[in-house]
Amino acid sequence: MAVVARLEGTKSSDAPNALETLRDLCAADMARVNQLIVDHMQSDVPLIPELAGHLVAAGGKRLRPLLTLASARMCGYEGDKHIGLAASVELIHTATLLHDDVVDESDLRRGRDTANAVWGNQASVLVGDFLFSRSFRLMVESGSLEVLDILANASAVIAEGEVAQLTTANDTATTEEDYLYVIRSKTAALFAAACQVGAHIAQSSEADETALEQYGANLGIAFQLVDDYLDYSSTDRAFGKGVGDDFREGKITLPVVLALRRGSDEERDFWRRSLEELDQKDGDLEHAIEILNGHDALSDTLIRARGYAETARSALAGLPDSQYRAALENVVDFCVERAH
Amino acid sequence: MAVVARLEGTKSSDAPNALETLRDLCAADMARVNQLIVDHMQSDVPLIPELAGHLVAAGGKRLRPLLTLASARMCGYEGDKHIGLAASVELIHTATLLHDDVVDESDLRRGRDTANAVWGNQASVLVGDFLFSRSFRLMVESGSLEVLDILANASAVIAEGEVAQLTTANDTATTEEDYLYVIRSKTAALFAAACQVGAHIAQSSEADETALEQYGANLGIAFQLVDDYLDYSSTDRAFGKGVGDDFREGKITLPVVLALRRGSDEERDFWRRSLEELDQKDGDLEHAIEILNGHDALSDTLIRARGYAETARSALAGLPDSQYRAALENVVDFCVERAH
Repeated sequence: MAVVARLEGTKSSDAPNALETLRDLCAADMARVNQLIVDHMQSDVPLIPELAGHLVAAGGKRLRPLLTLASARMCGYEGDKHIGLAASVELIHTATLLHDDVVDESDLRRGRDTANAVWGNQASVLVGDFLFSRSFRLMVESGSLEVLDILANASAVIAEGEVAQLTTANDTATTEEDYLYVIRSKTAALFAAACQVGAHIAQSSEADETALEQYGANLGIAFQLVDDYLDYSSTDRAFGKGVGDDFREGKITLPVVLALRRGSDEERDFWRRSLEELDQKDGDLEHAIEILNGHDALSDTLIRARGYAETARSALAGLPDSQYRAALENVVDFCVERAH
Repeated sequence: MAVVARLEGTKSSDAPNALETLRDLCAADMARVNQLIVDHMQSDVPLIPELAGHLVAAGGKRLRPLLTLASARMCGYEGDKHIGLAASVELIHTATLLHDDVVDESDLRRGRDTANAVWGNQASVLVGDFLFSRSFRLMVESGSLEVLDILANASAVIAEGEVAQLTTANDTATTEEDYLYVIRSKTAALFAAACQVGAHIAQSSEADETALEQYGANLGIAFQLVDDYLDYSSTDRAFGKGVGDDFREGKITLPVVLALRRGSDEERDFWRRSLEELDQKDGDLEHAIEILNGHDALSDTLIRARGYAETARSALAGLPDSQYRAALENVVDFCVERAH
């Protein structure tokens, strides 16, 4: 079988293909998920599918719903409730992106104009609310109150992380611990929940459910660390966001936290001017990258990402070996190696 | 009993007291609801309870959770799941208000500065999301998937109504039907759901549950009609919003729809300039009120409100007579008579 053949050939060096392999493996399920997402974006109010469709059509990796599908299948699930759950995970993520772009005042997402740039902040806020509500209706169809609790909790934690990020923005006193709280909440919580509900719906053992939740949480942290690394170093237009967005917004991500801790008074003055006071001049971003590299702050961010990635991978060790497990293991590489 | 004595004395002319009577009747339950709301606003991120507390402390009528409590009690419910449901109804409402104020760019709510005016739009969007997620966790505790579906659906419909309102704003071609769609969705859906879940948790008959849903829906429409009337005629500082907010934002509410339909070409030009183009001068609000009164547009809005109020009241006719039923009947008067 073609899928197996590709899987066997998937090593770390094939990391870019690991997401493709996971997609191939879940292709039939994913087609149903995509249909369900489109169905649940519909409304008598034409602006809703128009705006939501803009973001959904822009693509995105669909990594989170893939995690739900593969987790469920890996745990031997043969029903079809994982389809609705994967769709609701992606709808939560989509709603979050719409609100994020309003909060960040972003103009670009997945290489396209953001919805707020096209239709305004008001519509983005409200359509986000709509998608969020629809995601809950989809969850209800799973018939599992535990699943609802896991995902509702993840949603609340995401919002907490976003608020915490707002309060650490422009604050050069932000610690590594503060930063980790933010990314655990705003990113890792949904990765963890996406995996956990897959195991839960398959009626896995508590140990397996916890293992998958740990896999997702650590993968999510690694993923966000790499995102924050890429924001200072990506040369890839496909990254979809502009390099330096975090810098321009004064977000305090791990590379900056490390450079602040390791830097000179003069450098700290630079960070305070550029990130706290947002008093930025031409050449400041390049200077920032120079300082970050001077303290190995970018490479050390990647080293940490690899550590979390390794933790994610090893969380799967106790689960039955299968194509799905292999694909989930390999997707860890994809998340980290996209840094290159 | 004092409560009964006051109830017996409650007629239409006592409308201002009807809300008080309902509050007295549900006082013990409502104290638990308030505690639950405060508990669910808590977070490790201090800005969240601070911002949410600002809005919650400002009071508000707590009409929606009272509807849930009284509906459940009227249907003979003796458990305590109505407490969590009433709290989640109020949390949905609170989240909606936070997002509304961002969308409307309002500065004043319940007579205080809005949260967005104090902490900015970003925090209001995210704390709204947090409260919304927490409301779902509370619903999960009810243990009823049907209840979750009713409230998740209401939340999606509210968002649809808000988006529809955005698309009718500044559009003088808005019809009465368009307007009714907006208010049924953005206001009446939550009133209806608040009542329906009370009946549902009490395991009422389908007929009783539908009757309460109809009561809530019609009460909600009447309530919003009166709100839109008051926006052009309130002299009451306790209304909490400024008179003329809708006019300044170019919202097309029923009084304007009626005046547009009945007016002269010259008047339509005035509405187009002031509401579509938002080109407003000193004295325009006063002129608008003059035109509205010239066409009985405000008084006819009230007449329609009374019609819906009457429909709401009569929806309760088949339900067992009780203090709770009397209080719910009388609260209809409160919603309409606050216009005076």
